[in-house]
Amino acid sequence: MAPRGLPEPVLIRGTGLLGTSIGLGLRAAGADVYLADPSPSAQAVAEDIGAGRPYPGDLTGTPGQEPAGAGTPPGTVVVASPPDVTGQVVIDSLLRFPGAVVLDIASVKGQVQRQVQAAVVDGTLTGAQGALYVGTHPMAGRERSGPVAARGQLFTAAPWVVCAGEDSAPEAVAAAEEVARTLGATVHRMDAADHDASVALISHLPQIAASLVSSRLQETPAASLALSGNGLRDTTRIAASDPQLWVQILAANAPDILQILYGVRQDLDRLIATMEDPSAPGARLDIAQLMAEGNAGHARIPGKHGAPPQAFAVVTVIVDDTPGQISAVLQDVGTAGVNVEDLRMDHSAGYEVGMLEISVLAGRKQELTDALSAQGWKVV
Amino acid sequence: MAPRGLPEPVLIRGTGLLGTSIGLGLRAAGADVYLADPSPSAQAVAEDIGAGRPYPGDLTGTPGQEPAGAGTPPGTVVVASPPDVTGQVVIDSLLRFPGAVVLDIASVKGQVQRQVQAAVVDGTLTGAQGALYVGTHPMAGRERSGPVAARGQLFTAAPWVVCAGEDSAPEAVAAAEEVARTLGATVHRMDAADHDASVALISHLPQIAASLVSSRLQETPAASLALSGNGLRDTTRIAASDPQLWVQILAANAPDILQILYGVRQDLDRLIATMEDPSAPGARLDIAQLMAEGNAGHARIPGKHGAPPQAFAVVTVIVDDTPGQISAVLQDVGTAGVNVEDLRMDHSAGYEVGMLEISVLAGRKQELTDALSAQGWKVV
Repeated sequence: MAPRGLPEPVLIRGTGLLGTSIGLGLRAAGADVYLADPSPSAQAVAEDIGAGRPYPGDLTGTPGQEPAGAGTPPGTVVVASPPDVTGQVVIDSLLRFPGAVVLDIASVKGQVQRQVQAAVVDGTLTGAQGALYVGTHPMAGRERSGPVAARGQLFTAAPWVVCAGEDSAPEAVAAAEEVARTLGATVHRMDAADHDASVALISHLPQIAASLVSSRLQETPAASLALSGNGLRDTTRIAASDPQLWVQILAANAPDILQILYGVRQDLDRLIATMEDPSAPGARLDIAQLMAEGNAGHARIPGKHGAPPQAFAVVTVIVDDTPGQISAVLQDVGTAGVNVEDLRMDHSAGYEVGMLEISVLAGRKQELTDALSAQGWKVV
Repeated sequence: MAPRGLPEPVLIRGTGLLGTSIGLGLRAAGADVYLADPSPSAQAVAEDIGAGRPYPGDLTGTPGQEPAGAGTPPGTVVVASPPDVTGQVVIDSLLRFPGAVVLDIASVKGQVQRQVQAAVVDGTLTGAQGALYVGTHPMAGRERSGPVAARGQLFTAAPWVVCAGEDSAPEAVAAAEEVARTLGATVHRMDAADHDASVALISHLPQIAASLVSSRLQETPAASLALSGNGLRDTTRIAASDPQLWVQILAANAPDILQILYGVRQDLDRLIATMEDPSAPGARLDIAQLMAEGNAGHARIPGKHGAPPQAFAVVTVIVDDTPGQISAVLQDVGTAGVNVEDLRMDHSAGYEVGMLEISVLAGRKQELTDALSAQGWKVV
C-alpha cells in the first residue's frame, strides 16, 4: 500500500548513502522507486541492495524533451546528488518532468534555492515550474558513505528540515513532508536562511572544531596519545570525515559559517592574550569568563528527546572484557526497575576493562547504585 | 592487609573528589588513612563516607615543628589540594613530616616541581627533603566534584602518570607508584615537561575547544538547537566544567597550551581567509587540506585498550523507550556470540526512540546485523 500524498513513481537521482537509503525506506513503505546515478556501478549496487528499479529513460539529453523510452514519468523526484551539482540537477528535473515535485536533500539550502530562483528570473524556468521545487535536509548520516552502507531506517526519528520557499506550491511542500514522514523522520519547518544559520552552528562549527583539534595531533608522540581519555575522543569523534564532501558543504555555507568563525577567533585571540600573561590583573577572570560562557551555551543543548538538558545522573559500572557482561549489568538494572535514559562506554588505554556509564533519572541514582553493588558490580 | 611498599599511615591533604576517592580506595586496600582539609565540612563529609580518620595534629602552625598532638607521623602524604596551593602544601608537608614521601596529584606537573626546586635552591628545603617529593597525575575524574561524588574505584584502569624528577629518591618514586597501583591505575612514567606538553594537547586543548564551541550557543534560538545531533553533543560534552578549577589548570600550563593555540589560530586564520573567497583558486584545496589533516590526526588516537584506532564496525539498532529493550538487544548480541567492543546511544530530539550503536570487530558486522534482524530488531 503506497504512501498517500506521495506522487508516484519516485525517481531518486544520486545513489550514494542518502539516496539509496531513501530508496530502501520508500520501497519498504510500498512506494514505486526508480534510481539513476551517473556512475553505473553506484547505481547497480543500489539496485542490487533493493533500493529501486533502474530508471529506463535517458537523463543526459537536453532538458525539456521527454527522455527517450521513459515510461511513466515520475511524480516526485528526489535529488540526492553531491552538493555542488544539486542546483543543476534540480533545475534539470523541473524541466525534464513538468508537473513532478522536485525536492533535494543537500546540507545547505540557500544556495540551491537561489539557483532555482535565478533560473526563474532568467526565464530558464517558469514561475510554476520553480514552485514545484522544495528544499529539504534530512539530518541523519553515518561515518561511512556510499550505497553499500545504506539502510532504509537511517531516517527513523531523525530531524528532516523542510524549507518551503515563499513561492513553493502547497502540494509540493506536502509531498516533501510526506517523503520525510514515510521514512520515519520528524519534520521541522524552517526557511532556508534560518536553516543555513542553524546548521552552520550545530553541525558545521563542530566539524571545524573537531578538525582543528585533530590536526594538532599529527606529530604527537604515541606516549602522549596513550594518555587520551574521552575528552579528546569526544571532541574529535567527527573529525574522521570525507574531505571532499565537507569542502562542498563549508564552501556552500561560507557566509553563515564565517560569522561564527569571526566570533570564535575573537574568543581565541582573547584567550591567547590572557594566557601570554596569566598573572596580569583580570587575566584569570577573563579565562573563567570564557569557561562560564561555555557552560551557559552547553546548558542550552537539549537533552534526550528534547528534555531539559542534564536532567539525568550517571551511574558508572566497571565491566571487564568477557562477553555478556554489559548485557548482565543491564539485566540487573532492569530487575531494579530503573530505566536506562542514556548509555555510553568509557575506555581506558591499557587495561582490559571499561566503564559503562548509565544515565538514569537523578532521583533513582542512589537506589540503582545500591542495587548494583548488592549484585557484586563495582560501581565507580 | 596493608599494601606493601606504601609507607603508612597515609595522610591525604585535601578532601575534594580526588582526595576522598584516594582515601576510599586505599582504605579498601587495607591502608591506614588520615584526612585533613581546610574546610571542616568537606573533611567531615569525607570522614563520614569512610575515606579516613581525622588527622589529629594541627597543620596550621609553622612548618618544621612537630604538629601538636599528632600521634604517628604519616609515612606518605598525598597532596590533593587545589592546583594553586599545591606547591605550598607540598613544601609544608616535606618540612612538617621529615622522612615522609610526599606526592601530589595536580594536573600540571612542571609548576609544582619548579616550586619545590626553588625551595631547595633558596634553602627552605634541603636536597634530601626535596628528593622525597614526587609529582604525579591520576587521569581520572568525573563531571561532578566534591567528596560526595567520590568513589574508591575512580582510578581503576585509569592512567596515573608518575613524574620522577632527576633528584627524586627511588623509595619515593616506588611509594608513589604503589599508591597508583593499589588504586588499580596503570602507571605511566614520564618527565614533568613531557607530561605537561602531553596534557596540554590531549586534555587542555579539547577543553578549550569545547568551551569555544559552546560559548557560541548562548543566544541560539531553541528551534535551531532542536536540530542538534551527536556532532554538537560530542564536541561540547566536556564544556560543562568548573571554571574555577580550569582557570588554575590553564594558567599553570599556559606556556605549553599557548604553543598549541598559536597553531590552532594559524589554521583558523587560514580557514577564515579561504572561506572569505571560497571560489578563489586553491581555496577548496585549502579547506580539503585542513579536513585531511584532521583525518590524519584523528587516525592516531588509540582505540579501545590501546588497539589500533578504528578497528571496529558499528551496528546501529533502533530501541524504543520501554524498560529492558537495551538489555534485550545485548542479550541477543551475546546469543549471536559477538563481543561488544564499544557502546553508545544516539538520541534524537523529538521521538521516543534512540539508536544503540554497538561496535564489533569489523568481520562480525554482517553476521550480527543478520542475527539481530532475524530477531526482529530494526538495524539501521
